[in-house]
Amino acid sequence: MHGLGFLTAPILGDAEIEACLSKSAFVAAMGVFEAALAASQAELGIVSVSGARAVQELVQKGLTLEAPTLAQGVAEAGVPVPALLAAMRADLSDEGREALHWGATSQDVVDTALCLLYRDALDVIEARLGSLIETLKTQSEQYSKTPMLARTRGQLATPITFGLRVATWARPLIELEAELPALRGRALRVQFGGASGSQCVVAPHGAAISAALAERLGLADAPPWFTDRSGMTALAAWLGRLVAALAKMGRDIVEMSRGEVAELRAGASGGSSTMPHKANPVTAEALITAHAAAQGHLSELGAAALHGEERDGGAWAVEWSALPALFTIAGAASRQAGTLASDLRPDSERMRTRIEETPAVWAEAATFALAEHLGREAAKTAVQQALSAPMPSVEEFAAALQIATGYDVSSALVMGQTSEPAQAVSSRIFALRER
Amino acid sequence: MHGLGFLTAPILGDAEIEACLSKSAFVAAMGVFEAALAASQAELGIVSVSGARAVQELVQKGLTLEAPTLAQGVAEAGVPVPALLAAMRADLSDEGREALHWGATSQDVVDTALCLLYRDALDVIEARLGSLIETLKTQSEQYSKTPMLARTRGQLATPITFGLRVATWARPLIELEAELPALRGRALRVQFGGASGSQCVVAPHGAAISAALAERLGLADAPPWFTDRSGMTALAAWLGRLVAALAKMGRDIVEMSRGEVAELRAGASGGSSTMPHKANPVTAEALITAHAAAQGHLSELGAAALHGEERDGGAWAVEWSALPALFTIAGAASRQAGTLASDLRPDSERMRTRIEETPAVWAEAATFALAEHLGREAAKTAVQQALSAPMPSVEEFAAALQIATGYDVSSALVMGQTSEPAQAVSSRIFALRER
Amino acid sequence: MHGLGFLTAPILGDAEIEACLSKSAFVAAMGVFEAALAASQAELGIVSVSGARAVQELVQKGLTLEAPTLAQGVAEAGVPVPALLAAMRADLSDEGREALHWGATSQDVVDTALCLLYRDALDVIEARLGSLIETLKTQSEQYSKTPMLARTRGQLATPITFGLRVATWARPLIELEAELPALRGRALRVQFGGASGSQCVVAPHGAAISAALAERLGLADAPPWFTDRSGMTALAAWLGRLVAALAKMGRDIVEMSRGEVAELRAGASGGSSTMPHKANPVTAEALITAHAAAQGHLSELGAAALHGEERDGGAWAVEWSALPALFTIAGAASRQAGTLASDLRPDSERMRTRIEETPAVWAEAATFALAEHLGREAAKTAVQQALSAPMPSVEEFAAALQIATGYDVSSALVMGQTSEPAQAVSSRIFALRER
Amino acid sequence: MHGLGFLTAPILGDAEIEACLSKSAFVAAMGVFEAALAASQAELGIVSVSGARAVQELVQKGLTLEAPTLAQGVAEAGVPVPALLAAMRADLSDEGREALHWGATSQDVVDTALCLLYRDALDVIEARLGSLIETLKTQSEQYSKTPMLARTRGQLATPITFGLRVATWARPLIELEAELPALRGRALRVQFGGASGSQCVVAPHGAAISAALAERLGLADAPPWFTDRSGMTALAAWLGRLVAALAKMGRDIVEMSRGEVAELRAGASGGSSTMPHKANPVTAEALITAHAAAQGHLSELGAAALHGEERDGGAWAVEWSALPALFTIAGAASRQAGTLASDLRPDSERMRTRIEETPAVWAEAATFALAEHLGREAAKTAVQQALSAPMPSVEEFAAALQIATGYDVSSALVMGQTSEPAQAVSSRIFALRER
Repeated sequence: MHGLGFLTAPILGDAEIEACLSKSAFVAAMGVFEAALAASQAELGIVSVSGARAVQELVQKGLTLEAPTLAQGVAEAGVPVPALLAAMRADLSDEGREALHWGATSQDVVDTALCLLYRDALDVIEARLGSLIETLKTQSEQYSKTPMLARTRGQLATPITFGLRVATWARPLIELEAELPALRGRALRVQFGGASGSQCVVAPHGAAISAALAERLGLADAPPWFTDRSGMTALAAWLGRLVAALAKMGRDIVEMSRGEVAELRAGASGGSSTMPHKANPVTAEALITAHAAAQGHLSELGAAALHGEERDGGAWAVEWSALPALFTIAGAASRQAGTLASDLRPDSERMRTRIEETPAVWAEAATFALAEHLGREAAKTAVQQALSAPMPSVEEFAAALQIATGYDVSSALVMGQTSEPAQAVSSRIFALRER
Repeated sequence: MHGLGFLTAPILGDAEIEACLSKSAFVAAMGVFEAALAASQAELGIVSVSGARAVQELVQKGLTLEAPTLAQGVAEAGVPVPALLAAMRADLSDEGREALHWGATSQDVVDTALCLLYRDALDVIEARLGSLIETLKTQSEQYSKTPMLARTRGQLATPITFGLRVATWARPLIELEAELPALRGRALRVQFGGASGSQCVVAPHGAAISAALAERLGLADAPPWFTDRSGMTALAAWLGRLVAALAKMGRDIVEMSRGEVAELRAGASGGSSTMPHKANPVTAEALITAHAAAQGHLSELGAAALHGEERDGGAWAVEWSALPALFTIAGAASRQAGTLASDLRPDSERMRTRIEETPAVWAEAATFALAEHLGREAAKTAVQQALSAPMPSVEEFAAALQIATGYDVSSALVMGQTSEPAQAVSSRIFALRER
Repeated sequence: MHGLGFLTAPILGDAEIEACLSKSAFVAAMGVFEAALAASQAELGIVSVSGARAVQELVQKGLTLEAPTLAQGVAEAGVPVPALLAAMRADLSDEGREALHWGATSQDVVDTALCLLYRDALDVIEARLGSLIETLKTQSEQYSKTPMLARTRGQLATPITFGLRVATWARPLIELEAELPALRGRALRVQFGGASGSQCVVAPHGAAISAALAERLGLADAPPWFTDRSGMTALAAWLGRLVAALAKMGRDIVEMSRGEVAELRAGASGGSSTMPHKANPVTAEALITAHAAAQGHLSELGAAALHGEERDGGAWAVEWSALPALFTIAGAASRQAGTLASDLRPDSERMRTRIEETPAVWAEAATFALAEHLGREAAKTAVQQALSAPMPSVEEFAAALQIATGYDVSSALVMGQTSEPAQAVSSRIFALRER
Repeated sequence: MHGLGFLTAPILGDAEIEACLSKSAFVAAMGVFEAALAASQAELGIVSVSGARAVQELVQKGLTLEAPTLAQGVAEAGVPVPALLAAMRADLSDEGREALHWGATSQDVVDTALCLLYRDALDVIEARLGSLIETLKTQSEQYSKTPMLARTRGQLATPITFGLRVATWARPLIELEAELPALRGRALRVQFGGASGSQCVVAPHGAAISAALAERLGLADAPPWFTDRSGMTALAAWLGRLVAALAKMGRDIVEMSRGEVAELRAGASGGSSTMPHKANPVTAEALITAHAAAQGHLSELGAAALHGEERDGGAWAVEWSALPALFTIAGAASRQAGTLASDLRPDSERMRTRIEETPAVWAEAATFALAEHLGREAAKTAVQQALSAPMPSVEEFAAALQIATGYDVSSALVMGQTSEPAQAVSSRIFALRER
């Protein structure tokens, strides 16, 4: 939309999604709608069979319409359809012209064509999502015995595994993937309402035409939904939630890449000419940028969800801009998340060392182990007292506890005690996918 | 949240939802979580049966905790749970104290308790939604033969019925209602992860405890979802889309209440002391206000969807404020939409007169009727020519067309031709509910 | 940013702004920064005069860098600067290379270059804004005696003039124009901080370099502002408020273009092939679309306002996308508002007729006129009673009041009584510009 | 606005701001408007002196109106003013009643009263802001020689000082403070337009009344601005930008409080019963929460910026909710930022140790020092080569460079070389305040 788009194209752009949502794909999809409409109406005896065939042949040859022509059409009419129809009519026989766009309105064409495009874009994203979850599963299993410290509210917490951290990245993605079939049925619908949504000029065939269109186009059948944008906003909300889930992985990677943490590298690292030690986590950062951008477009679509009367102009056009932008951002984010997920380079040694250098992170395990003997309150007190002195190692922590309480809990203060439950939770997360 | 809240309370507030989401309901729900946790763990032999019973009895007696105490707890600890547990411990026997909150973290309590509250709030909204759809169905049927002009892009379009307009208000509501069962399963989940989401101190019973909690509390079972806010954002998105759908009705009513349109009155009308003819459509306006407010809270929740590492602080607290606010707004909007829907006072006479005074709105019908004889292009030209002269009535319009073309299409230019298809579409919309 | 951008280009795009914010303008501006930096440092004896001259000559020849090269640079480094510098170094002598980018960091280049671009874009918008206000002033004066009905809360209110309506469109624009000088000083600043914002490698010359850069580039001087985005958000907020003010005009025109109102046409009108009477107000609608889009980008920038530590990556990149987008939308909106403002075609007859057909709109005037004789409460009662019967004309209304009260207030119920004060307010609004 | 408000009250609430924006303050301010209006009109001979005095006396006695009464008024009329006037009339003599609210409309009262309240709230925030900047200045000076590592894009960068970090927190605050006088003049304006903004019933005294009101109330004079919300959105944008600037400090403190970083503690620290080593940075987190909440309300206000025709209903009411909420959040954030700023507990030892343990952070300084002898390219290469081997200390780094190049740059690799320029930048930042 602006001349500096190239700057953020690597971050927010996605060639494959942009191909799904291109001018040529859109013109083709509008043609496919018109061809399917004519064919459906020919079957019902509303237009002539030969006229419908002429429309179909024209569409199959491939409609070509220059972007400026369409843009000019939008500037003059507020929609690209009159310009498209004018171009089609110029290439059609009289019969074809009679069969073209019978009883349809511009919004029928645009909404249906966009649904066809969104279906293709969703296919791309779904495929990436599936493959990303698979990658994360493999990585989670690979690191299922790699201890690392959990962080809660930014603070060092208790030992978990890097495999569990990876599984938590996958967790919302699995939920979102599971929502897709219902979402498709809800959002990717045929639009056919005629001028005012009553299908009156094709009565009593409105429902039959809509059903035939849905069948031919592979979209859900539905009564006209000109102002019911709940399907479009469901799609937008899903995309926004997807980007947020991917951004969580990005944010965690940025945090893990910090100089002081240095437990993970993943994706591209931007260097600095005068600071050669730096490795800016640019791929991971891109997901954070994507999240902010996606939220902005969600805001637009939220406002645009409120359409007036039978058909709206200003609000509808917001969708043409914001929903494809959201798809593109989701594409960019899913692509870059895939790069990150298959390029996780944890520093297991550093992860382990950090645990060893911080005996206090075993406090919870010690408390629960002692509690079996002393009860919880006494256990908690004993642990707090032990930790009030400097505690250089977990061994000395266990020794101090044994001196104070008489119980040896050192067997509870080992990685295995924490990595097994972490592994179990990770497995349960990926098992969500088999539901 | 601010001292002027009373000003917009009639517009954005809702007593019934606020009761579901009150301090006392929240404290009770946190208690219910703790009681269910202790009972579940007693069954598994993790805590003592008598200790669990003590917790349950305390909870059944009713926890009382003053708002300032909880607020102070939030100020100090960033969560209300330590303050709650301190109060509970003060009232428990040693056994009860040992059985309380075993292996749980604050986020387990708060997330689960909020899910219990959201379930109740969702029940209220679902009931209102169902009843609103019923009302709209009745109204749509009542006005299924009441002709009115459609408006597309703010322009007078073709005749439909007021019944169809009402059905289009219900259309997204029916879609949203159908999403609810899946949404509940996705969003209203038990949270049980322990300090870092690995359930490690209760291993190997983590999954069993979670399942038992889900069973006792009537929530969905799930692996820990500390940072997977996709369920919460699904809930938020649904509420936001609901408010948008309700606001569409509000906006249409504002438009229909305009002095120049004057086709409908509904809900409260604000008067003016010096302009007695005014009837400000304040109930309908309230829905527009609600839409803007809901979108704002969605923005907050979008940002808050990105939680860091194992558990987040700053982002999580955003949810406590914005999601209940969104529920309350949705409650207010559904309540006021109910008022409007059952109080529709259309001016059928004015609706009919407007059609009669605007013969041009029959252009489409005339074109399609003539097209059967002349083909579409010729029909279109004939209609445009006829309308280039002033056309005081539909009869004269039909006469002019007959003179020009030789065909009498007057039978196509009658209300019945447009109200029957409109009625058919309305029926198909309400039939969506039976899917 | 997405392949369907052409669809909304007529609505949200602006060629002139896009030229200000193009790849070539950006590359040139980065070059201008580097040339100014080298020249400034040569003056201070930090780099060689000949080296600085080499840099300047290279820049004056015109840097050419393909978009893919820059994009690749962004993908790898998270910023376009390393790619630019590599290309410049390849074309520079050793001396030139030594003098290039001395003590600067990528963010110095990008922030300053963008400020140069934003200055040009702001010039375009300011010029349009000034011309738009002038046009509105002329129109307001032309229609200063054209009575029309005010509408408050969508209801017919009291008579004003079309000139006053036009003046209220200009009112926020005049305020926004007046803010521009301070905004420029606040937002369009030179950025020069070096790696971490301490200018340490060029100490003690940091302040002098910054001042010299500001002087050469025509930007405000300032200490480093890497994470202080308050200037950028001030710019964004101003653009968003501008679009909102322009959209108000669009929205009013859509409303005035409604079939039932039909008091104004302005800008392009989209037609309908089968509904020849329709004239969709597509230019005016475009402003409403622009408002939603602008708000979305403001949301993005709000999130991106929070930069971490010394320099941020993810949040900063949001600005590169959202702020140029906002400029472009503001450009599109100001251009289209200009079209509308110079193409106002009010139907004065219809405006007058509406007043005549609605005697109740004189209620306020009648009340105040009678109040001088009867006191307000009695006056109000008399007017309300008079209006409780059907009142076909203002003459009969005056007569009824005279019968009831004995006072003739007909001289207060004339257009002149309302158009003079309206004209006075309009003049005061435009006089704001002379402050 | 919802029953769980108590949960986030410590985070997003502010007693002092809430007192400024309370029901009683609002009722009082509406009374002050009415008294000032009557007095101004009495001076101009529009109402009787005794009537005006009666209104003034009633207001001085103190209006009492229950929240439910006002809320009921809003529910019925969409504004609280009719309910207020009814209550006032009940307590006034006939003379007083005649002098009350002459020629004013509800929006005159509400907009002006809210401006009076916002002025008070802005006073509170301005005072806190000034004191916060002072505190930060003192802290910045105190730590002007405390070395710490800068972080750019989350990576360890070059040595700066903690004092400079603190100064960068103050930097946007100083800019925002400087904007306040102009903002007040722009936003805090008297509203007086009458029914439709033409001041027609008080003609020709409209301008004089407005000027007298402004004088009496201490607000800026202005022609009616019913639909020109640019002042309100200027206020909102400023508040949102303030919260963002404060949140930056919060976010940095959260980061500095991380277990691995551990360079600063500030504000309240939430503990964990089973993880006694944890110190959750709850005060700092609250600022991040506040930022998300503020952005949400900005979104609301962005939508509400577009008012229709002469006066709007639905959009206007959004302001009553969102702007006070934004003030309250800004109050909460400024209060908590004050707590943090006066409670900075840096770990200078840890800051210094981190620099010492990371000799690579001297790479930039070494490059620039060597460049004076070798030229930049050679210097860069020498530094990169030296750092390709493990480098345990800065001394060994300097030695390695001397061996490789023959130059001793160790005097450039000392804290003083970096803290002096950092101090200079800090001073320039605080000097912005003296402009």
